[in-house]
Amino acid sequence: MTTIYELQTPALLVERSALERNLATMSAALPGPRLRPHVKAHKSTALARMQQAAGHRSFTCATIREVEGMAAAGLGQDLLLANEVLDARRLGDLVSRGARVTLAVDSVPTVEAAVMGGLREVLIDVNVGLPRCGCAPGDAGRLAELARSRGLEVRGVMGYEGHLMLVGEADDRRKQVEECMTKLVAAHGDVGGDIISAGGTGTFSVNTWANEIQAGSYALMDTAYGAVDDLPFEQALFVLGTVISTTPPADGIPGWAVVDVGLKSLGMDHGNPSIPGATVWFCSDEHTTWQPEPFESVRLGDRVRVVPAHVDPTITLHERMWLVDGDEIVDELPVDLRGW
Amino acid sequence: MTTIYELQTPALLVERSALERNLATMSAALPGPRLRPHVKAHKSTALARMQQAAGHRSFTCATIREVEGMAAAGLGQDLLLANEVLDARRLGDLVSRGARVTLAVDSVPTVEAAVMGGLREVLIDVNVGLPRCGCAPGDAGRLAELARSRGLEVRGVMGYEGHLMLVGEADDRRKQVEECMTKLVAAHGDVGGDIISAGGTGTFSVNTWANEIQAGSYALMDTAYGAVDDLPFEQALFVLGTVISTTPPADGIPGWAVVDVGLKSLGMDHGNPSIPGATVWFCSDEHTTWQPEPFESVRLGDRVRVVPAHVDPTITLHERMWLVDGDEIVDELPVDLRGW
Repeated sequence: MTTIYELQTPALLVERSALERNLATMSAALPGPRLRPHVKAHKSTALARMQQAAGHRSFTCATIREVEGMAAAGLGQDLLLANEVLDARRLGDLVSRGARVTLAVDSVPTVEAAVMGGLREVLIDVNVGLPRCGCAPGDAGRLAELARSRGLEVRGVMGYEGHLMLVGEADDRRKQVEECMTKLVAAHGDVGGDIISAGGTGTFSVNTWANEIQAGSYALMDTAYGAVDDLPFEQALFVLGTVISTTPPADGIPGWAVVDVGLKSLGMDHGNPSIPGATVWFCSDEHTTWQPEPFESVRLGDRVRVVPAHVDPTITLHERMWLVDGDEIVDELPVDLRGW
Repeated sequence: MTTIYELQTPALLVERSALERNLATMSAALPGPRLRPHVKAHKSTALARMQQAAGHRSFTCATIREVEGMAAAGLGQDLLLANEVLDARRLGDLVSRGARVTLAVDSVPTVEAAVMGGLREVLIDVNVGLPRCGCAPGDAGRLAELARSRGLEVRGVMGYEGHLMLVGEADDRRKQVEECMTKLVAAHGDVGGDIISAGGTGTFSVNTWANEIQAGSYALMDTAYGAVDDLPFEQALFVLGTVISTTPPADGIPGWAVVDVGLKSLGMDHGNPSIPGATVWFCSDEHTTWQPEPFESVRLGDRVRVVPAHVDPTITLHERMWLVDGDEIVDELPVDLRGW
């Protein structure tokens, strides 16, 4: 395979130059351990290896399978599972085989699961305002004490201000992040340890309280993050499709085209994807119906780059990404961290 | 694995008795060739084999990989790819190895692709009102003539009234289906052949013009179809999750729970999933945050059945389904038709 015209569609494309600029921009802003790249965004050890080459050696994971895959790929120097589990045995197996795995805990049973599973290190997960996981800030110290009494090393705290990632106005975002991080820093005072882990692509530059940021989407981007004005990252991810049907304008209805990219190749929780210079009407399982402007600008068989609204759930639908330089394919990035 | 308590979550469950009733209800209404089950809904040859056992030997597919997988599983007696492709060589390979594959065509280039790819049989895909694929009804006869002149057997017509599947009121749905099918029947008059293929789960009983119905969702169902009053099918598909975090009520905010089922295990284009007797707040990549009522009804570690809003894009996120009888696992159904 040498060009995108030889690919079976739909197919994920990653524009190499945009990816490289995104990685460089982030590692300049948050060098080395200041960034703990979140692999849930791309689910690819090949892409994680590029992040490692940019200087980051500690990674964030969302699932046990991601942790296992990263360890198997030799990227297990410092893996954080930033999520709660009640059966940690698979993680303990990795630790016993030499990987460094730190697990988030937010309750007595999750601390017990870490102990029973054979983990050695944990972070106390603190609820900083997003109603999801995390203990109340005032409970963090007691939970750390319990964990230490059970023989665990408590490395510090984490708290994810996920509800602020897409706040459009930077000053507003900074102010709200400060409120969240004030809680996390206070909890850290009670917990101790070296780590204050938080943040994401939307808050990487305004979250100055955390000492490591868990950003993932920055590498590839999507239209939701693209709408946040002050982010210095470029769209690098596209779903390549083929125009398989066109219907010319008639009876006052504009003409439309259909590309073979649909609900099964796109994460849809942030809404429809975009096609530059055109209006997307709707998506079906294997189709996106859209209105080219002008209609004559599109022909049957054309290859079209569809821009996903949400990077993470899009990538998990694909077996691989193709690293491209324009229309030329330069490498294959397997999406090898899917499943659970 | 003998019970659902031994499963790694998230995990897809199929309640056997509900599935069996759904299959029996449909095959009583549309016996044998009157139903051409659409495998895109479940992407599982094991489930297709259950549909075959219920009397259906012709199947509908949405992707080339689905056609290949069905043929490889020995279910290639009469496969329709109800979609347009511009490179049909993989399908032609199947035909040369003995599978019967019929391809939808809606334009001169798709007819040429069928010829070049080595296909022998096509259906003329007619636009009956959903702005997607399909030729104008008045063009169907000419396209059939072209196909026959190029040596293809034209088996008839298809037209999908997909925009009517979820119309809530049955009489209204029937009236709108009639308008669509009047166009398809007229096109069939120009095209000839034995087949008038159309319909889906939402219109299976009111579409009396088509002589075969392409329903798929009826076997497993989802909350979108569940909201259509007069459908006689039961919810058979669930995403099993584990409650990994709970936060009790405080400061006037109700308590919430978090289950490890999220955007990466649920199709989200029809909105949030449901949890019976509870209110779903939002989904994240690996979480659903929800409000149990009362809060005390849920405990950390509980197993919860989450009901997806849309069956097809949910299943494609999973490697397998577990056929269950309540909490007991009776079989594994691999989701072996994923990808393209």
